[in-house]
Amino acid sequence: MSLTPAAAAALDRQAIELPSWAFGNAGTRFKVFTTPGTPRTVEEKLADAAQVQALTGLAPSVALHIPWDLVDDFGKLAAYADDLGLRLGTINSNTFQDDDYRLGSLTHVDPAVRRKAVDHHFRCIDVMHATGSRDLKIWLPDGTNYPGQGDIRGRQDRLAESLRTIYDRLGPDQRLVLEYKIFEPFFYTMDVPDWGTAYAHATALGDRAVVCLDTGHHAPSTNVEFIVAQLLRLGRLGAFDFNSRFYADDDLIVGAADPFQLFRILAEVVRGGGMDAGSGVQFMLDQCHNIEDKIAGQIRSVLNVEEMTARALLIDRDALTAAQEAGDVLGANAVYMDAFWTDVRPWLADRREERGLPRDPVAAYAASGYAEQIAAERVGGRQAGWGA
Amino acid sequence: MSLTPAAAAALDRQAIELPSWAFGNAGTRFKVFTTPGTPRTVEEKLADAAQVQALTGLAPSVALHIPWDLVDDFGKLAAYADDLGLRLGTINSNTFQDDDYRLGSLTHVDPAVRRKAVDHHFRCIDVMHATGSRDLKIWLPDGTNYPGQGDIRGRQDRLAESLRTIYDRLGPDQRLVLEYKIFEPFFYTMDVPDWGTAYAHATALGDRAVVCLDTGHHAPSTNVEFIVAQLLRLGRLGAFDFNSRFYADDDLIVGAADPFQLFRILAEVVRGGGMDAGSGVQFMLDQCHNIEDKIAGQIRSVLNVEEMTARALLIDRDALTAAQEAGDVLGANAVYMDAFWTDVRPWLADRREERGLPRDPVAAYAASGYAEQIAAERVGGRQAGWGA
Amino acid sequence: MSLTPAAAAALDRQAIELPSWAFGNAGTRFKVFTTPGTPRTVEEKLADAAQVQALTGLAPSVALHIPWDLVDDFGKLAAYADDLGLRLGTINSNTFQDDDYRLGSLTHVDPAVRRKAVDHHFRCIDVMHATGSRDLKIWLPDGTNYPGQGDIRGRQDRLAESLRTIYDRLGPDQRLVLEYKIFEPFFYTMDVPDWGTAYAHATALGDRAVVCLDTGHHAPSTNVEFIVAQLLRLGRLGAFDFNSRFYADDDLIVGAADPFQLFRILAEVVRGGGMDAGSGVQFMLDQCHNIEDKIAGQIRSVLNVEEMTARALLIDRDALTAAQEAGDVLGANAVYMDAFWTDVRPWLADRREERGLPRDPVAAYAASGYAEQIAAERVGGRQAGWGA
Amino acid sequence: MSLTPAAAAALDRQAIELPSWAFGNAGTRFKVFTTPGTPRTVEEKLADAAQVQALTGLAPSVALHIPWDLVDDFGKLAAYADDLGLRLGTINSNTFQDDDYRLGSLTHVDPAVRRKAVDHHFRCIDVMHATGSRDLKIWLPDGTNYPGQGDIRGRQDRLAESLRTIYDRLGPDQRLVLEYKIFEPFFYTMDVPDWGTAYAHATALGDRAVVCLDTGHHAPSTNVEFIVAQLLRLGRLGAFDFNSRFYADDDLIVGAADPFQLFRILAEVVRGGGMDAGSGVQFMLDQCHNIEDKIAGQIRSVLNVEEMTARALLIDRDALTAAQEAGDVLGANAVYMDAFWTDVRPWLADRREERGLPRDPVAAYAASGYAEQIAAERVGGRQAGWGA
Repeated sequence: MSLTPAAAAALDRQAIELPSWAFGNAGTRFKVFTTPGTPRTVEEKLADAAQVQALTGLAPSVALHIPWDLVDDFGKLAAYADDLGLRLGTINSNTFQDDDYRLGSLTHVDPAVRRKAVDHHFRCIDVMHATGSRDLKIWLPDGTNYPGQGDIRGRQDRLAESLRTIYDRLGPDQRLVLEYKIFEPFFYTMDVPDWGTAYAHATALGDRAVVCLDTGHHAPSTNVEFIVAQLLRLGRLGAFDFNSRFYADDDLIVGAADPFQLFRILAEVVRGGGMDAGSGVQFMLDQCHNIEDKIAGQIRSVLNVEEMTARALLIDRDALTAAQEAGDVLGANAVYMDAFWTDVRPWLADRREERGLPRDPVAAYAASGYAEQIAAERVGGRQAGWGA
Repeated sequence: MSLTPAAAAALDRQAIELPSWAFGNAGTRFKVFTTPGTPRTVEEKLADAAQVQALTGLAPSVALHIPWDLVDDFGKLAAYADDLGLRLGTINSNTFQDDDYRLGSLTHVDPAVRRKAVDHHFRCIDVMHATGSRDLKIWLPDGTNYPGQGDIRGRQDRLAESLRTIYDRLGPDQRLVLEYKIFEPFFYTMDVPDWGTAYAHATALGDRAVVCLDTGHHAPSTNVEFIVAQLLRLGRLGAFDFNSRFYADDDLIVGAADPFQLFRILAEVVRGGGMDAGSGVQFMLDQCHNIEDKIAGQIRSVLNVEEMTARALLIDRDALTAAQEAGDVLGANAVYMDAFWTDVRPWLADRREERGLPRDPVAAYAASGYAEQIAAERVGGRQAGWGA
Repeated sequence: MSLTPAAAAALDRQAIELPSWAFGNAGTRFKVFTTPGTPRTVEEKLADAAQVQALTGLAPSVALHIPWDLVDDFGKLAAYADDLGLRLGTINSNTFQDDDYRLGSLTHVDPAVRRKAVDHHFRCIDVMHATGSRDLKIWLPDGTNYPGQGDIRGRQDRLAESLRTIYDRLGPDQRLVLEYKIFEPFFYTMDVPDWGTAYAHATALGDRAVVCLDTGHHAPSTNVEFIVAQLLRLGRLGAFDFNSRFYADDDLIVGAADPFQLFRILAEVVRGGGMDAGSGVQFMLDQCHNIEDKIAGQIRSVLNVEEMTARALLIDRDALTAAQEAGDVLGANAVYMDAFWTDVRPWLADRREERGLPRDPVAAYAASGYAEQIAAERVGGRQAGWGA
Repeated sequence: MSLTPAAAAALDRQAIELPSWAFGNAGTRFKVFTTPGTPRTVEEKLADAAQVQALTGLAPSVALHIPWDLVDDFGKLAAYADDLGLRLGTINSNTFQDDDYRLGSLTHVDPAVRRKAVDHHFRCIDVMHATGSRDLKIWLPDGTNYPGQGDIRGRQDRLAESLRTIYDRLGPDQRLVLEYKIFEPFFYTMDVPDWGTAYAHATALGDRAVVCLDTGHHAPSTNVEFIVAQLLRLGRLGAFDFNSRFYADDDLIVGAADPFQLFRILAEVVRGGGMDAGSGVQFMLDQCHNIEDKIAGQIRSVLNVEEMTARALLIDRDALTAAQEAGDVLGANAVYMDAFWTDVRPWLADRREERGLPRDPVAAYAASGYAEQIAAERVGGRQAGWGA
């Protein structure tokens, strides 16, 4: 293992935001399996997130989801987080769980529904002011199920207007982060289905509108790292929602389904300056632990990102460039793969140890008794999930 | 419109089974939208299904889902159905909603869980005896989410054993219908992911084990009509679950997403004898009316199947064969497409009129006041959905 | 059949450009099957194209491919076309058949290779001046096969520079039309893989840079009509390359694989003003008649586009809008589908007859003896194909 | 690195067959790039293959393609191979390059064409007797491009008959290995599109009919290792054609596109007994070195297979089984991934050194001067490619 000083500094800067909802229950339309100890409140979610940070040092902030994480006093919540060694991060809006949004929210034909959805985002901005969050992330769940059901063009025009209203409400240091998704929860059109659409809206809005790339939100066989490179080049890559997939938006643990893809993505992040200080690229997880332990799953996830980032930073850029410029196809690929196949795990364990962290955070968590403790303590109440 | 006598007879025989659950609420993992008037009981589901049959004459039977449709006295339920002009049809088992099945049911490593899942199927067979149903349909929701999580091979071996036990319990006139699905609710492996697996198990079991083809359960770009033709050739096409999709198992109204695919499927059904008297191929709907009216959606669905069947029956088989044998690529395609583009709707309306049915069943339903009536009457109680 | 006057006028305006190379041989990497009578020269290609126009009245212009269609005197070629009742249309560049372009053309690391590729486009612009063509279409075949082989970001930067140089050379009435494609001939990255990339480059270049949408150049399950609607909204839809596909860039006859998709695409073209006079949207075919007759294949293709355009124009826009605004999901879909299922063929045959064209152009072509004539006359020489 | 004795023995047994055509030119329908030194004869192909074997010890046999590799005296060719330290392996038939096969070969409607295609396979069997080859591999390139063009069912019936005739001609120690492919060179149907079809034909034929799995021949998102496990369970996995892909049948170097998939495949091979002595599973490469050096590409390929096999053999089966049986989702996945992330390369280099092989075969090849030598010597003649 031999990272350049710049690469080592980049690794030192790495911070991965945890989504509060990863600690609640999640599932499929068929079944949501529950686990003992699942948080009932946002405070309990934060307590669980603090375990991940304590054992890895990689996850200093937590994203909130409104209204799931609504509290009366966000200042108090921020202080609570601070006590746990955490910061409150991105604020995520939600327009997919209200009956009024059956046929759309920011794109709805009815101005009253659009107004309601815009107001929800205003409320999110209020929360951002209280928490000190920089980013308002909008994953727009709007779309249609049947050809002819909606007017694709009209929906775009209404979306542009709604986004403009929201964007203009943001403070000067706040950003609108627009996420795209090819399908689900709608099955014919989504109103922001691809990066091109998110990019076109972002450029129309202004400099503080950027794009969120969820690694599971593309058509099969899409080259995701190309999009990463392109958005960085265009100055519009705002955030990642990391997860992995074999089929659709499977929301599996990042790196679980196609670790080489994660490597290629992170290699483009490094190449495009996304790991540089002040790059503005936010790394976040967005996964569903349908059947596995949630806290251990989050620990595994941040370790996966760190390990792969280390591999991406290991690429011998000089040798790679030389081979690329020489037209040496196999040689360039070999330089690239050499970093991928290097076993960075022992080195990262040493590095953790130097910093007073456990060599094996997964084992340390299992040994900590925390899972048993919350299972015993968190009895009664209503476990958090996507509905609350 | 000019159907041959044999084609006209095939159209006369067409019967499309309705799933009881199509009348309850359905949705995505993000949200289940509800509608006023949604049935609370299996009797109310049957009442709604009876509307579809009364207005179209195409849907004389209803499939039940166990345990969602469990009643104390299935004989009484069958009599109730009979009063409504309906028969009780296929019995569908369910092993996806019990906490015990988180890691599998018929394939689980724990013999006690497998026993429980087998017993559930025994109970379904008991229901079949009470209802006079011929078919036990098993859509196996078992699978894994992470590489290494389960032993793919061991799961197959346990599945074979479980299916054998169930199969041996069937009566001499009953069939085991095994459905396959590429993914969901699991995202790495499904234990019956493709027709080849279903076919291999069916042939190992015996003559009364057949395959169910759900039109939404394949990888993108799979040629579904080829599978139809092949299963008919091999004598193992037992049933269809009709729906349509743009992306995954979208469960949209049959024919809505790719009407030409539905035509091609039905053309192979006709070609392979699947419309012949006694063919044993069961046509069923399996859809989710997430945002549209459910009863009207079912009416639209059976009409779509009928219209497309009429088009498939219209293919001039002699002309087609002649062009195929002459190697006339464009000519053969033209014969095929000529049937697809023929507007069979006026002719089918006439045909309905002759039979005392409304020319336009959708309009007749809207005019009937039934939707308003059930919305007014079905107040209180718990609306049926996938959970009950 | 009842088109509004505006719709009828739109249909009257419809013109579909034929690609000269459709009349030459095409195939797969496995085999190029040849047919008797295949043109040896660009003049023979034009003669074949003139058959399509004579029998359908739908195809008044022919796109050329440089260098395949290079002649010494393009003024003379234009006059020859004029005698045949044709115009010369879009000029298509080619940077995929020279050994120098193995690792890229406009994106190559070597400035000398980029210069060569730019010069090729300058030559194409010279041809445009001679032929009076408006559009320079660039389908960029550049890409890489192996991760690490090339620098994704650097290739984009070089591409931007090359395109700028070409764009600045265009005359004030000429356009640069940039086509995107997800994969092939390269299998890891393409340098213009998606509409977002083509759009970002076009907006950077200027108002006369627009995007070409080839219907076969997307990932599986991409909603192509959404892209059509979006590019029209953004004012950047310059051209279509029509064909159809089941799997990849199959280049089958337009409308053959998924006729409903073609309908949805044309419905968005109509909705977005793409059929309006002066819209600037160029409709072109780009197909490979691997195993079927080429001239008959082109006739079938332009008829498919015309029939589907007629269906798209038949949509009752007032009724559709009313249902959409009322949130009537099934009703809006029904209005939409009603147009799709209407059999426009007899009406279009009548319309042709009124204009002195054959009711059935396919049959008229078969009866004309042209195929037999060219098979007899075009003996010797080298049949045109992708290589020449 | 710590392999069990059984695992070490399995690794020792590993042999990867090279395809003779990998040393000739290959490309896309757009362009075949050539390289200096490309073989003109089968003898030169064998000489190149001998380089791979000499430097890696992993590739003791070479598959031949008929008619590309036809020689007058196969006994002499076998002796020549033997001198080079090679054996002649699988015989691959070819029915995709004759004009007669435009509409099919073993499935053609014309009995004379079917007869010709069967006779070609008889000739291949004659070659097998001369070379001592065990396996006749049939990749059937038959299919159709347009719906209606052919009769799907009739084509299956004719295929069954043709295969029966060929199978019956085989000697008692010879096998028929039937390969499937989802699409290309045909784009609507292939006559053997999936493993289910190949399996159904194989079981109908007899015990010596088995299936060949080409890793690039599936629909997007297909779980290939499931098919491997299933075919092994059913006793019908005869051979692999290894390569890799991002999109379609890209034919990239094995392990290049998705190394984790290759690991999962090999893990199932190990689990299912496919690495056991006498398993009958033949490992072969089938790739296209479109732009990279061919011999170096083959060396890279066999090393990729060896490295990944070592990783698959490293899986701690006891720990894995224990975690699986305990229902420890994350734990089982961790055991599995631990093997994947282990850097086996230094250990394999040591192992090569112990056997008198170069530690770094790629570097050794580059240093050998062989590439320069053949470029200088092989001047004139016609370079081998898919056409010859």
